[in-house]
Amino acid sequence: MAEEDRKRFLLSLAYDGRIFEGWQSQVGGNTVQDHLLKALKGVCPQIESVQGSGRTDAGVSAMAQRAHFDAPASARLDVGNWQKALNAHLPPQIRVMDCEQVDLDFHARFNATGKCYRYRLFEGAVLPPLQHGLVWQVRGKLDRDLLHEAAKLFAGRHDFRAFSANRGDGHDETRDAQRMIHSVEVLQSQQDPLVDLRFKGEGFLYKMVRFIVGSMVRCAQGKLDPAEIQRLLVGVDFSEKAPFCAPADGLMLEQVYYLGNKSMTSSSSPAISD
Amino acid sequence: MAEEDRKRFLLSLAYDGRIFEGWQSQVGGNTVQDHLLKALKGVCPQIESVQGSGRTDAGVSAMAQRAHFDAPASARLDVGNWQKALNAHLPPQIRVMDCEQVDLDFHARFNATGKCYRYRLFEGAVLPPLQHGLVWQVRGKLDRDLLHEAAKLFAGRHDFRAFSANRGDGHDETRDAQRMIHSVEVLQSQQDPLVDLRFKGEGFLYKMVRFIVGSMVRCAQGKLDPAEIQRLLVGVDFSEKAPFCAPADGLMLEQVYYLGNKSMTSSSSPAISD
Repeated sequence: MAEEDRKRFLLSLAYDGRIFEGWQSQVGGNTVQDHLLKALKGVCPQIESVQGSGRTDAGVSAMAQRAHFDAPASARLDVGNWQKALNAHLPPQIRVMDCEQVDLDFHARFNATGKCYRYRLFEGAVLPPLQHGLVWQVRGKLDRDLLHEAAKLFAGRHDFRAFSANRGDGHDETRDAQRMIHSVEVLQSQQDPLVDLRFKGEGFLYKMVRFIVGSMVRCAQGKLDPAEIQRLLVGVDFSEKAPFCAPADGLMLEQVYYLGNKSMTSSSSPAISD
Repeated sequence: MAEEDRKRFLLSLAYDGRIFEGWQSQVGGNTVQDHLLKALKGVCPQIESVQGSGRTDAGVSAMAQRAHFDAPASARLDVGNWQKALNAHLPPQIRVMDCEQVDLDFHARFNATGKCYRYRLFEGAVLPPLQHGLVWQVRGKLDRDLLHEAAKLFAGRHDFRAFSANRGDGHDETRDAQRMIHSVEVLQSQQDPLVDLRFKGEGFLYKMVRFIVGSMVRCAQGKLDPAEIQRLLVGVDFSEKAPFCAPADGLMLEQVYYLGNKSMTSSSSPAISD
């Protein structure tokens, strides 16, 4: 499509990660990107691709993953039409919560200035069925002081290569593994044995949040010395890896940040907290 | 088993109704009762049956369904052992949240003095994926005054045969369809487009809560006159039925009430609100 003949739209997507093989398109097709592209082509066969803000792994859910696509101007659908039409084509475990028209030079991934992830821990003895696959049930009570101490260690700019995995796709992220984490919050539910860890940062390496959570939990269980986290962060030996990666279950992509007001028009959907 | 050789245990069960064919055992076996009996026999092959407080339909979830079973005294498991052993045998979408030993003349169904059901409505435009199958998404904003007016009509002792369905198993409940509803609460979420309807009563006919909810929602949408509900409750013509049954999705069995302190010993599990 020539530039003058197309429009770019940015979607905000929520999905239940438990039943999909992650974001990234793959053979077999049961990924969020595959379902989304199929829905886009169902609405408008000329659409060629959809670009996410980044990948989420199998089992990881999202409240506001972002993705953009180009549609021919001739499609004549406004943002509200796109949202409704896509939701009619998508499985109910993937929902377009919002659609905005953006400039043609806007890019869901390259324009992202940061992300917010939540990781939910469950400290109770018996996991309620509706929480299955959405939390990590940890053994025993976590020491709050140690949890906060570990959280403080991760905040700031560090070389996180010890807290990441190789994607196995030939792309070596760890050549530039410096990342800024703006904040690590520890949020305690008042009535339930749930602890939310919330990470805001400019970007995250592959499995980085899960390696950090694994280390924080080990630390709060008294199985890992905070000094060891410190040591891995200053990178005495970059071939070393953090010893534990938390399961995908508890991870939720909550937000993707962009600079300024990129939105031209927007549909809106009331979201519910979960 | 002779009476002196057995012990009776009462379970409190939570389950995700979305993936089971209801409570009641049936050919094919994917019911909560079937999974539970299989788990019980897995722990102790001499166990013959398990008796629930009542049925829940396919798609209906529970926070605290109750069921009792008899085990040989020789099994020598305490309530905590039973809870752990059963949870190890059950699918994660069914959890034993509590186990108590009760007298041999206690019966999960016949001793129940009442039940509490919650029905969750969603008024938003786009249903978040994690709520799929757990709420009824209604069209448009419900009129709160009409919703409260309808709620008031149902509270009290009435003949509810117009608000029930025939089970189709030859047992005609409607010969005695008088039931007492102690309260109908309308609870509004502060931040989300959710409305919970909570029903406490001494007992409910087959699909009675769903027929009541269907009527309340129709009323709050301006599609059913409250006078029509009144007419069906006083029973001008008992062959008539309420016009609409709400889907199973939004229904949750929250509690089963028993008189007095039947518990001899009890295991306990912190529950989380959902």
